[in-house]
Amino acid sequence: MTFKLTILGTSASLPAYGRHQSAQLLEIGKLTFLIDCGEGTQLQLTHYKIKAQKIDQIMISHLHGDHYLGLVGLLSSMNLLGRKKKLVLHGPNGLEEIITTQFRYSQTSLNYPISFQRLGTNQSNVIFENDTLSISSFPLNHRIPCCGFVWREKPKPKKINKDTLPVDLSLVNIVRLKKGEDIFDESGKLIYRNSSLTLPAKKSRSYAYCSDTKYDETIVQYIHKVDLLYHESTFLDDMTERATATFHSTASQAAQIGKLAKVNQLLLGHYSARYKDVSLFLNEAKQVLEATQLAQEGIEIALEE
Amino acid sequence: MTFKLTILGTSASLPAYGRHQSAQLLEIGKLTFLIDCGEGTQLQLTHYKIKAQKIDQIMISHLHGDHYLGLVGLLSSMNLLGRKKKLVLHGPNGLEEIITTQFRYSQTSLNYPISFQRLGTNQSNVIFENDTLSISSFPLNHRIPCCGFVWREKPKPKKINKDTLPVDLSLVNIVRLKKGEDIFDESGKLIYRNSSLTLPAKKSRSYAYCSDTKYDETIVQYIHKVDLLYHESTFLDDMTERATATFHSTASQAAQIGKLAKVNQLLLGHYSARYKDVSLFLNEAKQVLEATQLAQEGIEIALEE
Repeated sequence: MTFKLTILGTSASLPAYGRHQSAQLLEIGKLTFLIDCGEGTQLQLTHYKIKAQKIDQIMISHLHGDHYLGLVGLLSSMNLLGRKKKLVLHGPNGLEEIITTQFRYSQTSLNYPISFQRLGTNQSNVIFENDTLSISSFPLNHRIPCCGFVWREKPKPKKINKDTLPVDLSLVNIVRLKKGEDIFDESGKLIYRNSSLTLPAKKSRSYAYCSDTKYDETIVQYIHKVDLLYHESTFLDDMTERATATFHSTASQAAQIGKLAKVNQLLLGHYSARYKDVSLFLNEAKQVLEATQLAQEGIEIALEE
Repeated sequence: MTFKLTILGTSASLPAYGRHQSAQLLEIGKLTFLIDCGEGTQLQLTHYKIKAQKIDQIMISHLHGDHYLGLVGLLSSMNLLGRKKKLVLHGPNGLEEIITTQFRYSQTSLNYPISFQRLGTNQSNVIFENDTLSISSFPLNHRIPCCGFVWREKPKPKKINKDTLPVDLSLVNIVRLKKGEDIFDESGKLIYRNSSLTLPAKKSRSYAYCSDTKYDETIVQYIHKVDLLYHESTFLDDMTERATATFHSTASQAAQIGKLAKVNQLLLGHYSARYKDVSLFLNEAKQVLEATQLAQEGIEIALEE
């Protein structure tokens, strides 16, 4: 099953050097999520030949313009392109008012339903769950209410080992095996040990998105051991004071959070317009966490099962 | 003195084929106007190496997203880039609420003043005037309240013919000559006929912007004999019914308005996403008005004095 992240924007508030404002596309199986939606996100989707209509849910982390100003245009374009499918829109208090105010003045009546889901920004909350996936929001530490998000696949069923499977095993017992249970007879006696009839389950993958935030170790609990962590790094380390004052992070602070959370891989982004060459971010972060890479427009990161 | 129009966007609501949503920059002498501000306008300004800070006034024709969604991002970027200079913002009822709502949630406090000027959308109004220039808004015929704008230079002073100017003529009389008056002595006797001491004044130039609107001949009175008319042409002629139903115009309707208004030059734009090749618009309009050209991203049109 797919678990793929596509980077659409890596810029902090002021777009520079061809970098676009924050937006990412996350595809997990048949579900597609847009994470933040800076100005021009619909143009970026077109540029990378991604159909906006496949987006099921949009997560807006906070109401700084560089994280949501592309939203009204995208919602309008989805409508013009004939969307009928429901869209789930997670965002902080205010997002619904901002959108409905604009649609009121433009006399826009969408032909598809939007389900507005207001984010609680003071604690972690499960914001979506189905049989295979759970998504939680959690508080970041920014100038205004701001959420991070974490996608975690649920534990997957164990695979049946067809080489050792007895031909007469009932469907009920096969379901038990997939859950990792041993098989007992009616008297309670062990017939088959699970490990003898199954192979390990596929890996449950996870992704966490942290933008924007100052360095805050309370975040670590929410993103523990994720496979991939995106953490903002607006500044280089010589601007640590500025980072703290503006509620942003430096490259090595992002790496430190990743290290504390024992993540498998770190992805940096949200670069300030003062930096033309973002490779410096990579150098600094790698001093703390080797498994770091740079978000850049258009890159795709697929997590294997 | 400069009188130059730069096209930043030519697309109707759905951006397509690399075309951007409506935005134009008009420079008249030391004053710079931004006319409409579709999503991504700040990126277009950067692309064409135009400093946003030089913009003195922004005109928003109406509150369909493709004409204003780039505004909040642009205002924020102006702030981040250190703007102190006042900005005048002309827009219909609702624009101030839309902007202030967003800045309230983002807790943005601008370091420069914005003077919100609410457009009357039912009649023509002078919205700006100085010694050399007058700008009026006028109603267009669209689905929601929508204004056109016309910039007209005031009559310019006649030039003194230094070859024929008597050396003893007083400053008061020179001012009279520049105004086109003849010179009389105290008894009321004609001393100098104006035409013998002056050369013709430089040309007063004019530009009118009409987007979005259905075909409506009542517009003609407001744009009479302008040097350059931008008139939207969302559709080709085979879509006339669709144009009327959506309160837009076809290429030849735009040309017909230009012809009735006796404009010197017509500029077409606001092309629907259904058209890849916009040269068809030119062909159709030229059947009605030969002096027609196509708006395209990045073109500049300078009007000579």
